[in-house]
Amino acid sequence: MRDIYHEDLEALSDSLIEMTRLVGGAMGRATQALIDADVQLADNVIASDDTVDALRVDIEQRAFDILARQQPVATDLRILIATLRIVTDLERSGDLAEHVAEMARRRYPSSAVPPPVRAVVLEMGQVAQRIIAKAGSVISTRDVVSAREIERDDDVMDDLHRKMLRAILGGGWQEGVECAVDVALIGRYYERFADHAVSVARAVIYLVTGEAPDAVAASA
Amino acid sequence: MRDIYHEDLEALSDSLIEMTRLVGGAMGRATQALIDADVQLADNVIASDDTVDALRVDIEQRAFDILARQQPVATDLRILIATLRIVTDLERSGDLAEHVAEMARRRYPSSAVPPPVRAVVLEMGQVAQRIIAKAGSVISTRDVVSAREIERDDDVMDDLHRKMLRAILGGGWQEGVECAVDVALIGRYYERFADHAVSVARAVIYLVTGEAPDAVAASA
Repeated sequence: MRDIYHEDLEALSDSLIEMTRLVGGAMGRATQALIDADVQLADNVIASDDTVDALRVDIEQRAFDILARQQPVATDLRILIATLRIVTDLERSGDLAEHVAEMARRRYPSSAVPPPVRAVVLEMGQVAQRIIAKAGSVISTRDVVSAREIERDDDVMDDLHRKMLRAILGGGWQEGVECAVDVALIGRYYERFADHAVSVARAVIYLVTGEAPDAVAASA
Repeated sequence: MRDIYHEDLEALSDSLIEMTRLVGGAMGRATQALIDADVQLADNVIASDDTVDALRVDIEQRAFDILARQQPVATDLRILIATLRIVTDLERSGDLAEHVAEMARRRYPSSAVPPPVRAVVLEMGQVAQRIIAKAGSVISTRDVVSAREIERDDDVMDDLHRKMLRAILGGGWQEGVECAVDVALIGRYYERFADHAVSVARAVIYLVTGEAPDAVAASA
């Protein structure tokens, strides 16, 4: 049987995985709200970010309590440091899903996403959900190979983001200035969401290998 | 005389302060490059971000070494945890200064910032430099009162950001879609830069009080 201390560490990891599910679900619903101009769904995403924020405060507090009480070393200490990094990335991911939902709300009853960029936004939403689900599974398995693969998924998102900007700026945009600005910001939210998943993966690599996350980043 | 361990901790803090100076200077120069369409200055900012990135890797590695070797507790452990958080925020702030410089470069020989928003961009640049300088001084003094003031400086940035968006979207914008998209993204870079300074301040509050940074955020 494991001691309470290690049960606390495992519970922290479970809470992080739960958080990846919440923010992934939020980004999926936010994308749907954007495409369908569904203001109820947008409101649902905006309201549910409070749950994510509360979970972050709770996880951080539990991590700090363990740090203060147990004076962990080696892997246990790395677990806690990685947890503090990951929870920050996931809270921010939740904010980005909320920003997407706010865009859906602001343009209601129109869709903030006009036909010329609808397909690319849908695809960005799918990549966002896939990458955060993978980040969640990497937190669970601590599989360094999968963690490194997340960089490549992020390249897919960057390509989609460039495609979107070409649609707005390549000439032939008929949807007006306001809509162009909204779509550009929406694109940035998805792109940053994927960046945070990469950062989660790097924190897991650090946890397993002891490699500093930015040495990982610099060599990527 | 202090022991080498505590000298190492102090040297870490000095490096963080140096990093605030570098990213503040970069944002100042990036703003100037934007306003003057000065492509040499923009290139200088873009090249100098490598120094910021290298300093981040160096600081993180030193923090991890101390964590592994010294098994610090209480305040010393909080210093290291705060350092890891702050270095992430500052590296990201450097990226944002670089993004602003890239905008200056992309529109050369035109200025990416047309006359109707020039004053507000200049002001955002000044607020960005002021807020990061204050974050640097808070790292040095660990003064919780000043740290809490940084939230209010960030409100000033948010007001400027809203003013900028009104200029683009309020009707009467004559500068075209591409320029509107650029200005909207530039505005977001400044706004996020200030958010990272707030996050640095919260990490210092945690260091001093032991309050979880997000409990601080939630009560702010």
